[in-house]
Amino acid sequence: MSDSEIPRLIGLDWGTSSLRAYLLGEGGRVLDRRAEPWGIQHVPDGDFARAFAALTGDWRARWPGLPALAAGMIGSAQGWQEVPYVECPADAARLVGGLRRIDSGDGGSLHLVPGVLDAGALPNVLRGEETQVFGALQLAPELSAKALLVLPGTHSKWAAVEDSAIRHFSTYMTGELFAVLRDHSILGRPARAQGSRLAPDAFARGLELAREGAVAGRLFSARSLVLTGRLAAEESLDYLSGLLIGEELRCALASLDGACPPLVLIGDGALCRRYREALRQFGVEDVRLLEEAGSAGLWRIAEAAGLLATPAIPTWSTDYV
Amino acid sequence: MSDSEIPRLIGLDWGTSSLRAYLLGEGGRVLDRRAEPWGIQHVPDGDFARAFAALTGDWRARWPGLPALAAGMIGSAQGWQEVPYVECPADAARLVGGLRRIDSGDGGSLHLVPGVLDAGALPNVLRGEETQVFGALQLAPELSAKALLVLPGTHSKWAAVEDSAIRHFSTYMTGELFAVLRDHSILGRPARAQGSRLAPDAFARGLELAREGAVAGRLFSARSLVLTGRLAAEESLDYLSGLLIGEELRCALASLDGACPPLVLIGDGALCRRYREALRQFGVEDVRLLEEAGSAGLWRIAEAAGLLATPAIPTWSTDYV
Repeated sequence: MSDSEIPRLIGLDWGTSSLRAYLLGEGGRVLDRRAEPWGIQHVPDGDFARAFAALTGDWRARWPGLPALAAGMIGSAQGWQEVPYVECPADAARLVGGLRRIDSGDGGSLHLVPGVLDAGALPNVLRGEETQVFGALQLAPELSAKALLVLPGTHSKWAAVEDSAIRHFSTYMTGELFAVLRDHSILGRPARAQGSRLAPDAFARGLELAREGAVAGRLFSARSLVLTGRLAAEESLDYLSGLLIGEELRCALASLDGACPPLVLIGDGALCRRYREALRQFGVEDVRLLEEAGSAGLWRIAEAAGLLATPAIPTWSTDYV
Repeated sequence: MSDSEIPRLIGLDWGTSSLRAYLLGEGGRVLDRRAEPWGIQHVPDGDFARAFAALTGDWRARWPGLPALAAGMIGSAQGWQEVPYVECPADAARLVGGLRRIDSGDGGSLHLVPGVLDAGALPNVLRGEETQVFGALQLAPELSAKALLVLPGTHSKWAAVEDSAIRHFSTYMTGELFAVLRDHSILGRPARAQGSRLAPDAFARGLELAREGAVAGRLFSARSLVLTGRLAAEESLDYLSGLLIGEELRCALASLDGACPPLVLIGDGALCRRYREALRQFGVEDVRLLEEAGSAGLWRIAEAAGLLATPAIPTWSTDYV
């Protein structure tokens, strides 16, 4: 076993809907990975300690003393233990200063990454995305000087990075708005009845309309166009997606006052490609995609905190001496 | 029994969630009224004829030949029979031209009012609100020359009336957006857990923020303000209501280019008062409220169509001769 294959950290991305675990070697290399649908609202019996043991117990038995670090909603009031937010500007040192160590209940321990608060007249908060941001800076250090990192999702975050710190960020509830309108409103009914199909043209049509503004008065067109035979029912969800993502882009780009720093999309590949296509339609061509930022961020924060295990011979290797 | 107490029309407001029936005398005077939660999606066994008979059968038995007229979603594809939309500009004559008579299945008949289509690049449709608009013109004839009629609700309609016709209208899904966010999104969770209370200040605060625009990037503040202790959880729904109604007003008023015709709110009293308060905060002071526009509109359309029954002696009165 080479040094690069020796585990030095267990990293957890523990969010609202899922729990992902990474066994990380030197430089944040992913040696193994696991996932369970045990987001903080879906942990069996609400027993965080048992879920942690079930997913990582064998790793920790095999490599005793291996440190564990978790980011995400696990540090919220609804999680295992609440970890206070650290405030913007948030660099790695400030995140490290806000880490909380908790007893995992089976003789081990787990460190929790704090979320970030952008204070001000209208406060903004995030938990988990800070780790992806620092992962992106690990993967692409040239972004540290100045970049705009976009994390599309249930709650899209737009994080402005400068001098290796999160200076400011905004939240757009685009993913959640889409989901509740699809599943519970009249706009989702045609597709719920007939199924939906991938419709790039309908998506582009929604984007184009959103670019003109006043989306509040145009949402209903996702229904009226179907009723008047000008939009296929099964394409109406992509049209709605275009309207909602378009409104996010319109507002976010307008707030930049025309000066758009290097823009990076972080997260799920398919969703990031959808956003890249939308950005292109809004005239923003130079957009980079980054995946796997989560595990890289956990590595970077653990390293900055001095948590990483010294490369050690695994316990079972004594059998071979 | 004086002439004014003799029934001349049965009017039905048959929408998505409820069915209201009016027994109307001369001038549209409401002699009797009934309601059942038999909106078109909740009619027992989907049997429209039986629901119609159950609600109005005794009236029609007592006054044979009494005409019946229904407005609303009952004329949609999901209703009793689909009635094609008539197009803007829609005056009373055009609505009358689009009336459909159907056999009620028990020897009687029922006329259905058509909805209205505002064609164009982005079509708009309504069903039921056209009748309330013509009811408002019946109650306040001075509005016929030029007025802006606002019907707040699940799908708020802003109808521009000129020369006694609906020239154009817009739809804002404000009520439905509020309901799905309250019931199914993270924004409703604090209030679902703790209950909500009437909070005029929180409503005003949401309105003020919406007035500045970019609501898409501010919706999440209904959560982040609660998380940071700057908004009481039980006041967050009124804040959200302010954001959403504010966005409707901002878009709708901006589309007027500064020239706001006499503005009238039609519909449920509490909701109309909420909109009047919001309009006041947006600088629109001169707003009138009209209730009972639905029954007045049914009367007006029936009168224009020549449907009204000749005042007749009820069948049972022969017993008294």
